[in-house]
Order: sequence, then C-alpha cells, then structure tokens
Amino acid sequence: MNSEIIAIGSELLTPWRQDTNSLHITERLNQLGVTVTFKTIVGDRMKHLVEAIRNALGRTDIVVIMGGLGPTEDDLTREAAAEAMQIGLKRNPELIAQLYARAAARRMTMTRNNEKQADLLDGAVVLENPRGTAPGQMLDLVYGKHRKLVMLLPGPPSELKPMFDQECMPRLREALPRRFIATRVLKAALIGESAADARIAPIYTKFADVETTILAHLGDIQLNLLCSKPMMELAQARVDELAGKIEEELEDLIYSSQGETLEQIVLFYLEMRGATLSVAESCTGGLIAERLTRISGSSRSFMGGAVVYSNELKTKFAGVPEDLIARHGAVSREVAAALAEGIREQCDTTFGLGVTGIAGPSGGSEEKPVGLVYLSVSDGKNTEVVERKFTGDRERIRQYASQTALDIVRRRLM
Amino acid sequence: MNSEIIAIGSELLTPWRQDTNSLHITERLNQLGVTVTFKTIVGDRMKHLVEAIRNALGRTDIVVIMGGLGPTEDDLTREAAAEAMQIGLKRNPELIAQLYARAAARRMTMTRNNEKQADLLDGAVVLENPRGTAPGQMLDLVYGKHRKLVMLLPGPPSELKPMFDQECMPRLREALPRRFIATRVLKAALIGESAADARIAPIYTKFADVETTILAHLGDIQLNLLCSKPMMELAQARVDELAGKIEEELEDLIYSSQGETLEQIVLFYLEMRGATLSVAESCTGGLIAERLTRISGSSRSFMGGAVVYSNELKTKFAGVPEDLIARHGAVSREVAAALAEGIREQCDTTFGLGVTGIAGPSGGSEEKPVGLVYLSVSDGKNTEVVERKFTGDRERIRQYASQTALDIVRRRLM
Repeated sequence: MNSEIIAIGSELLTPWRQDTNSLHITERLNQLGVTVTFKTIVGDRMKHLVEAIRNALGRTDIVVIMGGLGPTEDDLTREAAAEAMQIGLKRNPELIAQLYARAAARRMTMTRNNEKQADLLDGAVVLENPRGTAPGQMLDLVYGKHRKLVMLLPGPPSELKPMFDQECMPRLREALPRRFIATRVLKAALIGESAADARIAPIYTKFADVETTILAHLGDIQLNLLCSKPMMELAQARVDELAGKIEEELEDLIYSSQGETLEQIVLFYLEMRGATLSVAESCTGGLIAERLTRISGSSRSFMGGAVVYSNELKTKFAGVPEDLIARHGAVSREVAAALAEGIREQCDTTFGLGVTGIAGPSGGSEEKPVGLVYLSVSDGKNTEVVERKFTGDRERIRQYASQTALDIVRRRLM
Repeated sequence: MNSEIIAIGSELLTPWRQDTNSLHITERLNQLGVTVTFKTIVGDRMKHLVEAIRNALGRTDIVVIMGGLGPTEDDLTREAAAEAMQIGLKRNPELIAQLYARAAARRMTMTRNNEKQADLLDGAVVLENPRGTAPGQMLDLVYGKHRKLVMLLPGPPSELKPMFDQECMPRLREALPRRFIATRVLKAALIGESAADARIAPIYTKFADVETTILAHLGDIQLNLLCSKPMMELAQARVDELAGKIEEELEDLIYSSQGETLEQIVLFYLEMRGATLSVAESCTGGLIAERLTRISGSSRSFMGGAVVYSNELKTKFAGVPEDLIARHGAVSREVAAALAEGIREQCDTTFGLGVTGIAGPSGGSEEKPVGLVYLSVSDGKNTEVVERKFTGDRERIRQYASQTALDIVRRRLM
C-alpha cells in the first residue's frame, strides 16, 4: 500500500514556513505498513489544487490532504477535492448547526463566511475536530477503477494530529491488511551524533531486520528502532534485544529507554525519591523552569525558583553574598554553588540547582568567553559544580546549558 | 515566472527527515521575482522520478531538482531527467578526469561506480561543486513549445547552497527579465486568523499585485506582504500603502510593522522609556522570562523574577500574604495583583508582572476551570488585572497566557 501526502497553503511555499505535519502522518502511516511515495506542497490556487489531487489519486492508494479547510476565501480544499474527484459538495445543515453552537458556547458571533466549513463531499464521513472549527472528511471511493482512501484534514498541527490519531487511524486499521510493528525510542543526553554512531553502528548493523535511525538535536540524541514482523512477539523481541545491547554500550548516557523527555525523567526520579527541586537561573533565564513545568504534575516535585538575571536579584532571591559576586564575578564556580545552595534554602527543597554563564553574543571576555557556563546542584551537604564551554549562538548555548543542568540532577538522583 | 522544486531521496519520505533546502532556494528565487508554485518530494525510484520531473516541466517555467547526483545505485536523477526530457546523456571525459584528479588530490582511490557522476545531459552547462564530488547541471531548453530552465543540484545543503548562489543565480539573473521585490511583515497579537482575515480581506483583495499571506501560531499572527515590480520604488510603494491600510484597520492589535517578535517590542518600549520589568509566574512556569531572555541585551530592561509554582514561594518571593491566598485561592484576581505588586517591590523595577492560572490538564474545578488565568501588571500606583479563559491543552494555555502577559505590558507602555 502506498500513499501521498498533500500539504496545502501558499505560506508553505514561502521561505518562512514549511510543512511539518507530514512527519507525524508518515509515522502513523508507516505503523500501518503504508509507505509514503510522494509528498506534494501546493499553494491556495484552485487549478493547482485540482491538479495535485488528481495526480495523487492517479498514482497512490491513500491520499492525505492537509490544510485549506478554514473559512477564508483562500480555503479551497473542499471545492478542489470535489472538482478533482467529480463528486458533489453540499452544505450540511447539521454541521452548520454545530458551527453556530460551537461559536455560541465560546460567546463568539460567527460570521457568515464560516458556514462554508459545513460543506460536505458526497459520501464522506465527518471527522470530528474538538480542537477547532473545521471538521475533517474521509472518503472510501472507487476512482479510475481502483479503490482509494482520501482524507481532508485541517492544517493546524494541534487540530490535525489528534484528528488523524483518533478519527483516521481506527478507520484505516479496519480498511487495511494487518501488520505488526514494534518500536522503541532510546534517548541519550550530551553525546554527539557521530560519536554515538561510531559506538553503536557495529551493533545495529547486525540487526538487518530492525530499522535504526539516529536523530540529534541540541545535546539530545534519539535512537528510533522499528521492526515489522508477521507476529507482534517476534517484532517486539528483536527491538528489545537491540535496545538492550545499545543500552549496554552507552550505559548511563542513556536517560530514557521508552522515549520520555529528560525533564520527565528528572521529575520521575524526584517523585520516586520523595525529593523536591528549586532552581536559580541566570543565563538560561527561565528555560529550565519552563521545561520542567511543561510536564503536567510537575508541581509535585518542582517548587519553582528565581530568574536572577541581575546581580541584585542573585543576592535577594538566592542569598548570594554581594562580596562573593564582587570577588569572583557573577559567572564563576563560587556564584554557581552559592545560587544552588541559596535557592535550596530559600525554597526549602531537597535539591537546589544554580546556573550562571554567558549566553552571548555580547558580554564575553578573553578570560570568560561567550559559552562559559557554571552549573551547580546542592542537597545542603554536598554541592557539586561543573564548568562547561559551549559553542554556537545564544539559543544553542541556552539549550545546552539547560540540558546539562537537567542531566546533572538526573545523575545525582540515579 | 513560476517554478517547482523537486527534492529527491527516500529518506525525505520517512518520519525523521525532511527537505529544508527548498527554503533557501525559495528565498533566492523570490529575490528574482520567481514564485514557487509546487514542491514535490519523491523517493529514489526511476518511475516516480520521471513522473515528478515531467509534471514539473508541464506546469512551471523553472524546475529545480535537488539530490540523487551521487555515485550509488540509488542516485538516479541524471537518468530520470534524460528520460523525462527525452534528451541524451553521455559520460564526459573532462568530468571523468576531474573526478580522478579530485580523488588523487585527497589521496583517495576512486571506485569505478563514481564515474557515473561524469554523465552529462546533452546541452547542459556544468555547475562547479567545490564542496563535493558531483557537479550540478543546468539546461535552457524548449519543452512542449515553451522555454524551460532546469537545474540538477546535489542534495547536501553544504554543497547545494553555495552552488545555487554562485553558479545558478548569476545565470538565472541573466536569463530572466529583471524584477524587484519589496516585502513587509506585520504582526498582531491575540486576534484569531479568521477574525483578522474578515477585517483585512476587503483591503488586501484590492491590492491584486501584492501577495498577502497570513500565518497564525498560538495567539500570534504574521502578515507577509510581497510585491514584485520592474522598479523597486513601485514595489516598495505598493507594499507600504497596503501595510498602512492594514495598520489603520487593525490599529493597536498590530504590535510590529517590521517583523519583530512581541518580546523584542516589549523590550524595545521598556528601554525607550528607561523602564525595567520583573515577573512572577505561576502557571507559565518561566515561559515569560524565557521568552524575554531569548533576546540578546534583554538584561538592560528585564531584571528577572520568580517562578512561584508553590503557594509558599508566592509569599516568599513576591510577598503575597498567606491569608490572601487562603481567602481567594492561588488562582484569583487578588493574588495576580499581589504577585505583580510584590515582585515589582522585591525586584525594585518600574513594572511588575504577575500571572496565575490553571494550565491543566488536571487541577481544574467547576468554579475555576482549566484555562482560567489572571494576569496583572503594576507600576506601584496602578495595578491592572485581566481575566482570561483559554482553551486547549497545557502547551496552548501556557503559550496564550505568556502572549497575553507580554501584550498587556506592551499596551501599558504604548
């Protein structure tokens, strides 16, 4: 079975935006044993849309069309699909009522142009969109003597992804022959892509039936393992065997063997040990707190902390002595330790984390260059400080600093 | 003039990789007044490649083909282009010699399969590739009675980008009629895409010669205006005229008329007024501080603040009276105001910003549902509080809350 993904929107043909939805859709289709053979990106022009949809129907079994379901004049997907497949399009009274009801529940007045979102292709199944206005549509039809499955989905990722997972996947599973796919995601912090590959390539190349992909992003490495077999037990066993061997090789560099994020792992260990954490951040400016509080339930172990950009606030919120800053400078081993110890005491937590450094691009000197960061964790008795020199731009330095900080806490908890 | 970009490579059809080269090519083509009307991504299969190239030649004037020029069996672009255009492909002795010379200079022995990189399409100009082995090719031909420009480029970004800039751009500039492109980027906060479109569509539809694109992302709207004319003054005048009319219509919803981010604008206004800011964040957990400190130089106006996830820290760092929390609850109008006033006093800044709310998915009640957020800004004399009910998941609620918080500060500074 093969498929084509069509991403619609003139903004996707600018230098500023690109389709990313197709990655999620591809992952899901692969899980069903469906290959993606083409991706087409096309703007909001009727003629081009019709051509793209016709081409896709002519060469693949499953066509996933994303975007162009909104209420504006540019949203032409429904009309184009009707034209390409030569089937009718009618305004559906039930869907109109739902649109007005949704607007009313939000105390909004719905403008008339919104009604076009209630246009339904003949024979289409409505795909619910609890996160947005425009419903999706799915068709199971015969086109040029072949059976085709066609989906019309909204463009915003927050609407598209849950719709595909909850509305399309069960229907596709029913419509397609069964395949069993086992996957594992291993994650490692702070090892380079080629360094990791050099160590594990001799292992995974021996597993020809497991597809192994390495993805690297700012101090974080993700290893995706995928195996497809006629029986689930066989697929799972192969994936687990390879995962075990990789874990043996990379040891404690691996922080997750089931795909959790580093912040999830840190919070998990904290909770398991009944411990709490607070942070005092200078150069990361709230990034560590932000990453931890992304996780629902983080308030059970993460109490909060301070963003101590100015020296005054380092003293005020984390109790760093003024003369310590004067003597060693704000970016120093000593101040990092004092931040960790101080914030821990102020917040009355098991552990305190302190970070100070120079994120750049300005503010560096010969002695203390851009990228120099001190990170410290303290439990009141033991205070550990590490020094790192990161390279790259401001964003990269901040990301690496937050990654290193979380990893230091993880290692302390292990 | 329109164009199509074809990205070749089976890895670009997996969930883990995607074409990003096309963004650079699009930017360059736009600079020449060339629009990208289609992007096609296709795997390393002869039949699919030929089809993709034929489709592109049938519908656009300029076809940029990226990838598949290497020495392996999977590298089929040259053969596919020859087949699609029905022109000859011959091994070029000069190019063979260059390949062997290049390998020798690097003290490498060149395997025989590498020779296919010397295959040249009849009538093609060779595009030098100083960063890699495979040269590119460019054709200026008549296909189906129309003139077409076709480029074959290597896939690795480090080879493709310099080749396009240095080898293709001068040739394209010579081949194409001269056009000048003016652009403007307007940004607005906290207005929905369809609400914005309903207000400005009557304006921009009258400017048929200016391409207007609306991008929406979590409480942020970006309007891209682009106009291409034979003279720069004409293009600029049209774009500025439309920008002016849109600004008139959307008034203070527009926070930026040159593409700056909301955090840049807030920092700019603060600095212009010699004012400083501190924040006390509960449900946003550091996100507001993180957004502000992304900007280099933010330390001049942003002093820092506290992430007060627990009630104890609301009292400790922002001086919120315990009994106030007990009386009204942590998520209340009163506590938001106290956070803003308290953090301002603690940090000794001109303005204090306080945010408290329920990001979910748990923690909501009938009286105080998930998504309820109170935001407050205070200058010590005036304390303003707004209540918002955001919908969506945890990430969406936090993003909207941070966006609203920054926008309240911006409006206060205006």
